[in-house]
Amino acid sequence: MEYLETLGQKAVAAKYELQKLSTEAKNGALQAVAAALVKETDRILAANQKDYEIAKQGGMAEGLLDRLKLTDARIEGMAEGLRQIVELYDPVGEVMETFDRPNGLHISKVRVPMGVIGIIYEARPNVTADAFGLCFKTGNAVILKGGKDAFYSNEAITEIIRETLCNRQILADAIQLITDNDRAVTTAFMQLKQYVDVLIPRGGAGLIRAVVENSTIPVIETGTGNCHIYVDEDADLEQAIPIIVNAKTQRIGVCNDCESLLVHEKIADRFLPALGEALKAKNVEMRGDRKVMTLIPDALEATEEDYGTEYLDYIISMKTVASVDEAVAHINKYNTRHSDAILTENTAHAETFLQGVDSACVYVNASTRFTDGFEFGFGAEIGISTQKLHARGPMGLKELTTYKYLIRGNGQIRK
Amino acid sequence: MEYLETLGQKAVAAKYELQKLSTEAKNGALQAVAAALVKETDRILAANQKDYEIAKQGGMAEGLLDRLKLTDARIEGMAEGLRQIVELYDPVGEVMETFDRPNGLHISKVRVPMGVIGIIYEARPNVTADAFGLCFKTGNAVILKGGKDAFYSNEAITEIIRETLCNRQILADAIQLITDNDRAVTTAFMQLKQYVDVLIPRGGAGLIRAVVENSTIPVIETGTGNCHIYVDEDADLEQAIPIIVNAKTQRIGVCNDCESLLVHEKIADRFLPALGEALKAKNVEMRGDRKVMTLIPDALEATEEDYGTEYLDYIISMKTVASVDEAVAHINKYNTRHSDAILTENTAHAETFLQGVDSACVYVNASTRFTDGFEFGFGAEIGISTQKLHARGPMGLKELTTYKYLIRGNGQIRK
Repeated sequence: MEYLETLGQKAVAAKYELQKLSTEAKNGALQAVAAALVKETDRILAANQKDYEIAKQGGMAEGLLDRLKLTDARIEGMAEGLRQIVELYDPVGEVMETFDRPNGLHISKVRVPMGVIGIIYEARPNVTADAFGLCFKTGNAVILKGGKDAFYSNEAITEIIRETLCNRQILADAIQLITDNDRAVTTAFMQLKQYVDVLIPRGGAGLIRAVVENSTIPVIETGTGNCHIYVDEDADLEQAIPIIVNAKTQRIGVCNDCESLLVHEKIADRFLPALGEALKAKNVEMRGDRKVMTLIPDALEATEEDYGTEYLDYIISMKTVASVDEAVAHINKYNTRHSDAILTENTAHAETFLQGVDSACVYVNASTRFTDGFEFGFGAEIGISTQKLHARGPMGLKELTTYKYLIRGNGQIRK
Repeated sequence: MEYLETLGQKAVAAKYELQKLSTEAKNGALQAVAAALVKETDRILAANQKDYEIAKQGGMAEGLLDRLKLTDARIEGMAEGLRQIVELYDPVGEVMETFDRPNGLHISKVRVPMGVIGIIYEARPNVTADAFGLCFKTGNAVILKGGKDAFYSNEAITEIIRETLCNRQILADAIQLITDNDRAVTTAFMQLKQYVDVLIPRGGAGLIRAVVENSTIPVIETGTGNCHIYVDEDADLEQAIPIIVNAKTQRIGVCNDCESLLVHEKIADRFLPALGEALKAKNVEMRGDRKVMTLIPDALEATEEDYGTEYLDYIISMKTVASVDEAVAHINKYNTRHSDAILTENTAHAETFLQGVDSACVYVNASTRFTDGFEFGFGAEIGISTQKLHARGPMGLKELTTYKYLIRGNGQIRK
């Protein structure tokens, strides 16, 4: 497709310029973009209003409409996000390692930008400014494909960023938005391997599956989380209830919330009735095995499918197990390699769980809700990787870089 | 496919056992496998003879027949490779980072095996033992799909490894060979995402393209190298000729050999005639632009296609350029992100080149042939990555691992 070819070529041209920018130049531009977004609030709101009306007429659900809607405060939030990125350490240029070889070659491993990053995301327009900020700070050009429901909002935000860069003598193609909403264009974008170095999908399971299946560009899978909490026979049961309630209900619809609970059968009698009351008070629907159903009268029966489901809703699956080993095996069968927790005062059980569970983040005695770039202290987050290649778990600025080897010699040839 | 499902399930079962093995247990098994391969030399040679005869009858070219052929010495070489892996540092379990959060969470980032690694390779049977050794040392289960031309050899080597592991109470499924040579099985293997964490193709450009296009498993692209040397106006011309001859001819058919040469026009008159003589003496066919053809009478005319070709043969493309910037732009247009070199005594030109060239390995005053895990001092090599995700350049043991975050708390919930 000629349209995408042109986009790709422009991004590549921009990447060679961006990798030369100093941290100061990048920070100055980010500050200017933050100011411009606030200054142009009315322009963004007008565009957003267009999206909102189309979506409302199209019958979009209330929750999604709310995510789409921009306000003065949300635009200020975007600007503040960019200002926070200014404060973060610029990883580009960091010398990660140096070593000398017996033949006199001096090798250094240096952190460099990825080059061109593609991001495909759904209807939240704040991702546009956020993704730009993170990619720009790390010297990458970004090509964005946002959801068509936020089209006018994304377009307005992108234009304001491009104008600001242009005014500062920086190539506007540091950010490009795919404005053709044809599905075939999105699929072709996933195969723009010649120009795009990495593709990051941000959105629901369907989007991520489509990207994994169609992309020839290396993908970082993010986001789906069927997270578990296992309450061990040696758990502090008083501590357990607030942790579970927090992990399930503090925020619904996020990838690090708890979807499934395992309880050691030895403490089920003592623990489940009280937990059932606490979850019921938060309007959580419980689906469990026979034992759970006996101890929590409100619990429905869980099917095999429940154990593999990321509800993103006020629903939790529950199961009793006979040992920490059974808990680990169950989790490794059903989880999405995201975040899982054990609640126990028994160090040996904790270690078995930490070692055995195959997830990006494995917790002892804490809520799974902490799997997050900000909570980890990275100061930013582009997503949470659920794959093992490159980055795992919360990804900050460092994870948007790669490295290259610089080898300095004085005439060495291979014998 | 039921066959692959079973294979995948067995590999997953093995991965959970392998990640628990101590370094001593892994080293002991590797030593035992090395001894078994030597002891069973006759059995391997008999299987290899079968492959060799089928290949010869099928009209396989001499060079490929030579790569397929095993001898006592080559089997001893495989065993020695495994013994060398025993000596290497085991990266699994290494604590890469620890940090404490203000809320009291203690986070550690720990190196862990990938899990299940898939390797698809062509007709060299020594890869079977080598890939097993590297994956096993890093606690990974491996599923191998070798070229059908080496089928009996690969099968014999795999069987000997499995028998040895079994005798040591280690799950034999640490190594599995796909024995169904149907192409549809190989394609389905590339989509065994539920069980395989990473897929590494080792072979020619066609194999790698097929894997990138068909795989839904994260892939590490390896191997294709259209490597350049740029002779700057400020090069030490006496040093330049041996470096170029080495990079082009020391070993033909490898990914880090030099395929294309750029020469600053200011030194072309002084340099090209002598270089032409040196390359001619090594039977290298030269294909250049007008200026090259004028200065080297034997040079043929280069087409646009030549500049993008990885010859893997006694052929080199040549071009004159007006500046280091032109050289960098040409290289970034035609290279495969593998290895490129500048020859210069001018520090500013060297820095421009090091910064500007988008390759895994960028050299100053040395042959590109050093891009190699052993030459870099890694002690082993599973391949040379030409992508930017995860690993770039030579990949040793560390690059066969990922990490996970272990988070220890005492009741933290998210506010």
